[in-house]
Amino acid sequence: MKRKVCVVVASRANYGRIKSVLQAVKRHPGLELQLVVAASALLYRFGNVVELIEQDGFKIDSRVYIIIEGENPTTMAKSTGLAIMELATIFENLRPDIVLTVADRFETMATAVAASYMNIPLAHTQGGEVTGSIDESVRHAITKLAHLHFPATALSRDRLVRMGEDPASIYLTGCPSIDIVCQADVKRIDVLKKYGGVGSTIDPRKPFLMVLQHPVTTEYADTLNQIGETIKAVATLKMPTIWLWPNVDAGSDDISKALRVFRETDKPEYVHFYRNFEIADYACLMNNCACFIGNSSSALREGAFLGVPAVNIGTRQNRRERGKNVIDAGYDADSIVAAVRKQIRHGKYERDLLFGDGNAGSKIADVLAAHAFTIQKQITF
Amino acid sequence: MKRKVCVVVASRANYGRIKSVLQAVKRHPGLELQLVVAASALLYRFGNVVELIEQDGFKIDSRVYIIIEGENPTTMAKSTGLAIMELATIFENLRPDIVLTVADRFETMATAVAASYMNIPLAHTQGGEVTGSIDESVRHAITKLAHLHFPATALSRDRLVRMGEDPASIYLTGCPSIDIVCQADVKRIDVLKKYGGVGSTIDPRKPFLMVLQHPVTTEYADTLNQIGETIKAVATLKMPTIWLWPNVDAGSDDISKALRVFRETDKPEYVHFYRNFEIADYACLMNNCACFIGNSSSALREGAFLGVPAVNIGTRQNRRERGKNVIDAGYDADSIVAAVRKQIRHGKYERDLLFGDGNAGSKIADVLAAHAFTIQKQITF
Amino acid sequence: MKRKVCVVVASRANYGRIKSVLQAVKRHPGLELQLVVAASALLYRFGNVVELIEQDGFKIDSRVYIIIEGENPTTMAKSTGLAIMELATIFENLRPDIVLTVADRFETMATAVAASYMNIPLAHTQGGEVTGSIDESVRHAITKLAHLHFPATALSRDRLVRMGEDPASIYLTGCPSIDIVCQADVKRIDVLKKYGGVGSTIDPRKPFLMVLQHPVTTEYADTLNQIGETIKAVATLKMPTIWLWPNVDAGSDDISKALRVFRETDKPEYVHFYRNFEIADYACLMNNCACFIGNSSSALREGAFLGVPAVNIGTRQNRRERGKNVIDAGYDADSIVAAVRKQIRHGKYERDLLFGDGNAGSKIADVLAAHAFTIQKQITF
Amino acid sequence: MKRKVCVVVASRANYGRIKSVLQAVKRHPGLELQLVVAASALLYRFGNVVELIEQDGFKIDSRVYIIIEGENPTTMAKSTGLAIMELATIFENLRPDIVLTVADRFETMATAVAASYMNIPLAHTQGGEVTGSIDESVRHAITKLAHLHFPATALSRDRLVRMGEDPASIYLTGCPSIDIVCQADVKRIDVLKKYGGVGSTIDPRKPFLMVLQHPVTTEYADTLNQIGETIKAVATLKMPTIWLWPNVDAGSDDISKALRVFRETDKPEYVHFYRNFEIADYACLMNNCACFIGNSSSALREGAFLGVPAVNIGTRQNRRERGKNVIDAGYDADSIVAAVRKQIRHGKYERDLLFGDGNAGSKIADVLAAHAFTIQKQITF
Repeated sequence: MKRKVCVVVASRANYGRIKSVLQAVKRHPGLELQLVVAASALLYRFGNVVELIEQDGFKIDSRVYIIIEGENPTTMAKSTGLAIMELATIFENLRPDIVLTVADRFETMATAVAASYMNIPLAHTQGGEVTGSIDESVRHAITKLAHLHFPATALSRDRLVRMGEDPASIYLTGCPSIDIVCQADVKRIDVLKKYGGVGSTIDPRKPFLMVLQHPVTTEYADTLNQIGETIKAVATLKMPTIWLWPNVDAGSDDISKALRVFRETDKPEYVHFYRNFEIADYACLMNNCACFIGNSSSALREGAFLGVPAVNIGTRQNRRERGKNVIDAGYDADSIVAAVRKQIRHGKYERDLLFGDGNAGSKIADVLAAHAFTIQKQITF
Repeated sequence: MKRKVCVVVASRANYGRIKSVLQAVKRHPGLELQLVVAASALLYRFGNVVELIEQDGFKIDSRVYIIIEGENPTTMAKSTGLAIMELATIFENLRPDIVLTVADRFETMATAVAASYMNIPLAHTQGGEVTGSIDESVRHAITKLAHLHFPATALSRDRLVRMGEDPASIYLTGCPSIDIVCQADVKRIDVLKKYGGVGSTIDPRKPFLMVLQHPVTTEYADTLNQIGETIKAVATLKMPTIWLWPNVDAGSDDISKALRVFRETDKPEYVHFYRNFEIADYACLMNNCACFIGNSSSALREGAFLGVPAVNIGTRQNRRERGKNVIDAGYDADSIVAAVRKQIRHGKYERDLLFGDGNAGSKIADVLAAHAFTIQKQITF
Repeated sequence: MKRKVCVVVASRANYGRIKSVLQAVKRHPGLELQLVVAASALLYRFGNVVELIEQDGFKIDSRVYIIIEGENPTTMAKSTGLAIMELATIFENLRPDIVLTVADRFETMATAVAASYMNIPLAHTQGGEVTGSIDESVRHAITKLAHLHFPATALSRDRLVRMGEDPASIYLTGCPSIDIVCQADVKRIDVLKKYGGVGSTIDPRKPFLMVLQHPVTTEYADTLNQIGETIKAVATLKMPTIWLWPNVDAGSDDISKALRVFRETDKPEYVHFYRNFEIADYACLMNNCACFIGNSSSALREGAFLGVPAVNIGTRQNRRERGKNVIDAGYDADSIVAAVRKQIRHGKYERDLLFGDGNAGSKIADVLAAHAFTIQKQITF
Repeated sequence: MKRKVCVVVASRANYGRIKSVLQAVKRHPGLELQLVVAASALLYRFGNVVELIEQDGFKIDSRVYIIIEGENPTTMAKSTGLAIMELATIFENLRPDIVLTVADRFETMATAVAASYMNIPLAHTQGGEVTGSIDESVRHAITKLAHLHFPATALSRDRLVRMGEDPASIYLTGCPSIDIVCQADVKRIDVLKKYGGVGSTIDPRKPFLMVLQHPVTTEYADTLNQIGETIKAVATLKMPTIWLWPNVDAGSDDISKALRVFRETDKPEYVHFYRNFEIADYACLMNNCACFIGNSSSALREGAFLGVPAVNIGTRQNRRERGKNVIDAGYDADSIVAAVRKQIRHGKYERDLLFGDGNAGSKIADVLAAHAFTIQKQITF
């Protein structure tokens, strides 16, 4: 009997961080993949990730809309609740042997709560990491619900052990997102062609910046100001810039608004806005950019592997492990500009395997097929 | 400005474990109580706790039905999701400064998830305890979401510190449930008069047993068998017995069924079934019973304070702290009968302050009024 | 291409009124059956109808729990909302060509709302009937959403036309519930063997009564009193009595309570309580009983076909068409007793084809396969 | 005792059509207003109507987010379900004597279903009208649930009677939206100043067009094409144009996309896009425009009162009553252009009181205070 592994893909970021696992589960003789696509992965506004997933050859077992509009803390909570309700019905009908949940966002939490109340063994990637947002609390809460852990770094693994998780349930596999970067031909320069977006044309052979700044949900009220400073910094640097739309989260409406006003009012010739890239293309653009700016964890994670000079803004990645490729900056335009200039002068960094060596997917699939689960968890102390 | 403290009371057990805090918050000059009554606390089947709450003089700010019928793991997950959705709307409209969540059940989890996604500081009682059910995982997960902890025992407090919670956010107050027991006149013998229930009359001046056995959600499929053995044990002992209906949980339908069949088929003259007691009456009956049987944590908690001889059945309280008043038994009738007989021979134990000295409520209210919250949590390692 | 016909079966009553259609759709070469089992059809408390459905050889495409506990008007409304949300996800994934909804209860409404907002052609059975409860309003509201109507009687058909429905969308097929009665061997006397229930043994060869009384949701507050009078009447008649548990609805908790108290207090030797019968067995018992008492529409519908002497209590069936087999009684015990005695003296009535001739199922399937739908409805005046 | 009248305002359109009733209820000595603000009325994307409501001096009793993102038929159905669930809790806590629901959109349906299952008398405005979309079916379905009807036109009133509604429950009051238009100083030309929007400046002293085109949910798949033709027509006319963002509905995402592409690609100098106007400003702009284009019912309704030349596109208003001020056009650019040119040549029409004389609000309030409700509805035939 194959073990049925159900994975809920809920966003662009989710998909990038689990795709190599989906591939490995799909081809593993002892496993059967059950794929649920949910939340922003179904929405046009966030790049219609569902189409990408189908183009990549995955069969989707269930689609479920779970985002309650508003993009504020209240609707994030409500969306989590809605997701739990709907996923429970889906799990009831799919009857998975294992549910795999990715990282730390609200859909991840929903998946974790639904599976654990349903006594379905829960596996979790990216546990044990520390960061600066509600995501950290959520990630640790999911750890306490999960039966199987796939941390990305040695430090994260140690943290899981210290939190009282059974060492026999923890497998250091590296992060699956590195697998994709590792497989991608990151030297291509023609990746922008297939994307629309709005704004002027970027020539990827010349130095360009790449920006992705998400709202910090615990600093929700300050979002407009924060993104304003980053806009000011980019407007000072005036280099060709690829700017990516943020995740759906409390505050993303404010970011979208600020970006739209910037676009309408300043009409910045040097910026092109994109909703979404395929993961390999994202890695490729990251690899080729002169400096990556924002608060996306990809700067720390994939960035380390690629050696991309990156400027990390504000508190969102507070205390997250990072390699030498990252310089931190405050929310003010001046400190952002200074850091970016320093990084451009430095140029590319050495490859750093901090977050994995590119084989996480198949390692995870092997564990999913073989691990002996105990449904009743106990803290070790 | 008074701090608005919102408490969600969701079940009979919840209310008993937080009532003294509600009283202390209500009379504290720096606090304003916001009371939400939800879930089984609204249901006739579970003793209409809402009426008790009103009789006790509390004003209810919002009532919300959140239990999806089925009493299986799927509906528990769904009820959690529903509760999060509804509580988010309620918090949006009540705008509390602090949300206080009690213990470890699914409504507790829902309250915790809703509050933390809404950036409302979350306080939690009974963190750090270990037990044998999904409740343990849920309790630790809530700990990872909570900003303020009120553990009941020194050992629990230490566990919270070891899990990475900031010691400055942890206050050892004892369990509020002990406050009620401490205030109650536990020597009264006429408490049964006001309760209906079904079955023969119990004379509380003669030795009697008291039984409360909940389903173990992670052993959901075995519920019928487990309750069957306890029924067999009681049928062997044939002493006057007060039997309480279980909580709503995956499996409670099976317990109800078994009890009904027992009642219809055996027509046990010596047993009287009750849905619910007021907390003080519960403490009083517990205090006077010859032996308390089942898997309720009250045997360990209030039982320690009262020195009640108790037989704890099965895995539900696995590893939970207990005083000398508890003897563990397996699920089989023989071992239950043997343990009960041993306890009856022993009689009352000494008072043990393991779970508190009776002042938890006012200690908690004082902290709620004074604690300086940091909304962004960080693990300490 | 077969047309995919999705049917939502949500209760015991639902199943009896649609089973012959399910059979006919399943064997029709131009149709594919998609079966969703929901609500009380999944619950033990209501006789676990889902098992019956599987025993009858139907494959279930999706199961969904949607009843929010409380059995009051508020939870009925909430359950309707929950059902719409969940059914929308299910329809999104099953992609039916037609949705078929049965009669008039809240799950029926939910099915109708979900399908019509999703632009899925909606077929409806039992439209145009009048009765005395919220069900009547709901039934007419569903009519206004439905694209295809299968009324059971000529009078109902005329009412649909008068309400402005396009005559080309209305097919007078009779009620599918008659099909089952027509196929059943209603002379068997051994049907009670396989059912448990509680109470004394009924000998079906001797005259016996059959009682089924549902709460009237618009007279919600009066439920306890109403059922009390019926209990008093049965206690006066003291004949062997088969008593059936009511539907889940606002008020059913009160009925259950009253029946339990009756059972515990009066210990009526002559009554046996049952949760549920298979439909054919129900028809058989009905056929053999001396008098059917209560407010179930089956007394009017199947009762007409079988010629069963019936006493219809109170307002629930107000103005619903009925044959000569029915005598109406008020809610008071005296008038119930008098009517029952009159019916027993009269004995069996002639067969009346008012609600159908037993071929509704296949007629409906043929229409479903052939009807040309217009998704944009227009009132005819 | 004042009667508590609860009104759910769920969108920009809703508010305009009920504002004068809110005012009249608020000042009526026999009534108490309970105001729930929900759905798109809370969203920035749809003009933050909630702020307007507060500026107008109304106290909001409850806010509730109920839109599930996706803007397709599935999420419309799900949003309806979510709204029913949440409104039930709100009604449970507010305990209104009457619920008033406006017109025909999905939130209206949700309000109607929640209230009727909760046995709360339901009043409905704009019943009996016919149009070309799912809205028509929904409007008639709500009629079948409503206990009190306030149709806007004599023809609508007659249709309600023909559908079987009790004539004693129907009051011809005219449409409250006309009240606002009637009170507004519609000759002002400086209303645009306070609105941002994007695009070039419109000089309201020179002839300008006004466009508002909503998606037709039953022609969901054709939305992009439909809006494309209107864009083509406007691009041909090249007159100063005020273009309004559509309602949230299945398809509005497509319309938004098309408008954005139009703006980015064509950079039309003559168009200014607005999210929302205050109702009085809307009336004023309408009054002053050379021609109103689209499929908004305001062209027919307020348009008749103001005598605004209007071109009504496509099927959305099919069969709705209209005065002489409206010319119908197909979805193709050519027919739209021809009709607009004809209307501009014609200029203003005579005032037509078809939809009311401006006193609907106070008439409705008087009825709400005095009408004797029967909760059990019966069709009249």
